[in-house]
Amino acid sequence: MKLAIYGYGNIARGVESAVAQNPDMTLTAVFTRRDPASVKTRSGVCVYAASALDAHLDDIDVLIVCGGSATDLPVMTPMLVRKCCVVDSFDTHARIPEHFANVDEAARECGHVALISGGWDPGMFSLMRLYASVILPEGKDYTFWGRGVSQGHSDAVRRIDGVLDARQYTIPIPEALDAVRSGAMPALSTREKHRREVFVVAAEGADKAAIERAIVTMPNYFDEYDTTVHFISAEEMRRDHSELPHGGFVFRTGKTGFALEHSHTVEYRLTLDSNPEFTAGVLVALARAVHKMALRGDTGCKTVFDVAPADLSPLSGEELRAHML
Amino acid sequence: MKLAIYGYGNIARGVESAVAQNPDMTLTAVFTRRDPASVKTRSGVCVYAASALDAHLDDIDVLIVCGGSATDLPVMTPMLVRKCCVVDSFDTHARIPEHFANVDEAARECGHVALISGGWDPGMFSLMRLYASVILPEGKDYTFWGRGVSQGHSDAVRRIDGVLDARQYTIPIPEALDAVRSGAMPALSTREKHRREVFVVAAEGADKAAIERAIVTMPNYFDEYDTTVHFISAEEMRRDHSELPHGGFVFRTGKTGFALEHSHTVEYRLTLDSNPEFTAGVLVALARAVHKMALRGDTGCKTVFDVAPADLSPLSGEELRAHML
Repeated sequence: MKLAIYGYGNIARGVESAVAQNPDMTLTAVFTRRDPASVKTRSGVCVYAASALDAHLDDIDVLIVCGGSATDLPVMTPMLVRKCCVVDSFDTHARIPEHFANVDEAARECGHVALISGGWDPGMFSLMRLYASVILPEGKDYTFWGRGVSQGHSDAVRRIDGVLDARQYTIPIPEALDAVRSGAMPALSTREKHRREVFVVAAEGADKAAIERAIVTMPNYFDEYDTTVHFISAEEMRRDHSELPHGGFVFRTGKTGFALEHSHTVEYRLTLDSNPEFTAGVLVALARAVHKMALRGDTGCKTVFDVAPADLSPLSGEELRAHML
Repeated sequence: MKLAIYGYGNIARGVESAVAQNPDMTLTAVFTRRDPASVKTRSGVCVYAASALDAHLDDIDVLIVCGGSATDLPVMTPMLVRKCCVVDSFDTHARIPEHFANVDEAARECGHVALISGGWDPGMFSLMRLYASVILPEGKDYTFWGRGVSQGHSDAVRRIDGVLDARQYTIPIPEALDAVRSGAMPALSTREKHRREVFVVAAEGADKAAIERAIVTMPNYFDEYDTTVHFISAEEMRRDHSELPHGGFVFRTGKTGFALEHSHTVEYRLTLDSNPEFTAGVLVALARAVHKMALRGDTGCKTVFDVAPADLSPLSGEELRAHML
């Protein structure tokens, strides 16, 4: 199957390397809104202007749309699904119903399949919440994130006066994980679930105490958490904080039995060296499923909830049953 | 939807209590090959002779077949799917392709849907292996079982001369779990992955040393493991070992990036107070999916790999996207 990428950032580079691990796929093109001559791909795949997409549709079974959720994807995905099948990683949970409706309408009109909100949260974590909730209807969910870099929180710190660079790590609190794992179904406040750690490169002569105060009291981003701030050099930032690790936990604990006398804990944990590359791995598998659905004549917008797991795999049903069931 | 149960053992009782947690379901009947008058259900649902099934088909959307994998299900499931839609928990991994073929043929001939091999392994663990393998094609899987009671191993010990009762626990070795979790992709021998612990009630005057020797050297069951044997009283057995806890871990560790420079670990862990009740929770959710597939006109044999997750839930697609994605 022939994949193409629209946009060329971290996730797109992840898709580029993921395709190399999937022998049934070829990456045929990267489309960019920048000057194509200014974009050099890692794999050497051709780069075209976004405006040239129509001329290359024969080379695309599924287009992976790699844009930001705030302003790019709400416009791009409904527009692009009019041309071909698409997958995106739209991750603004509250706006998913609206995005779904827009993409679904366009996809149905043009007879294509779209899959939105692929990745790990939304994505794999959503699947884990669903599976565990149907098995244990009398129970309680917990999601923890990290240890990992939050781009939004890092950006928020960078906007503070005197801050040259910043990296924010979200860290789940071990005591909270243990309390959940025990099946005790604790009520946990925001502060009890996660703490935040910030590494800052300050401008020469900047008021570090003022910067620290501005961080730890920042509404919505930091004020409800215990936050530790470390001032480091630009060299230390480059050396120790250039990667984008992430991960997290989904738990469900529930009770079964005629008297609810038995307790069960389901735990799903991701520990990721590279958030964009793992996300890309999910998107590429979803693209395979989208292609199979399109070949069967299906149309419209889908989410991970609509994808039969077998469609994600290059193996046949027979091979899956023999080797993986 | 209307569920019925065929066979009335541990898993059937689990189904009976699980239905009570799912307001969209009603349990309409239990069918037994024993004398129905001798079977008293926990919920008071009516018990009929297995031979009376045909008279009650109007009250059954999906029949959950609760029999053993060794001799019951290979005969029962193909026979029963000729009458209505069915779900079973066939768990002999090596014979799944053969069972699938038999059930599929019968299901297609009669226009019904069957789902085989539901539960947690095969079942949820299989799903976790599939999802992780498609996201991380360059990687390695590990499955650990326990701490939990293995019925097969307990039965094997009970057959030893001088043993009145026995309970065998399979226990994953913490150092092996840590080595896998680290992403080091260790090669682990059978002995390095699990140990076994056996509790035995011996007959008065029995040769305990001989019993212990017979256990730890038993081919296939114990000889490749480090096994600890404890002799206890019948009273201690009743008090401390009357439950059927189980669980386990599925891991996949994999590498991504152009130079495979990033490592990732996916871990799925179940900690279950009651193996049959958790298994029943999975079967009941799968029965819901089977019913939806049948209503859409689908036929044939399915496994967990063929079930779109949304079909497991009583919630609408809209509700799932708004609250669970």
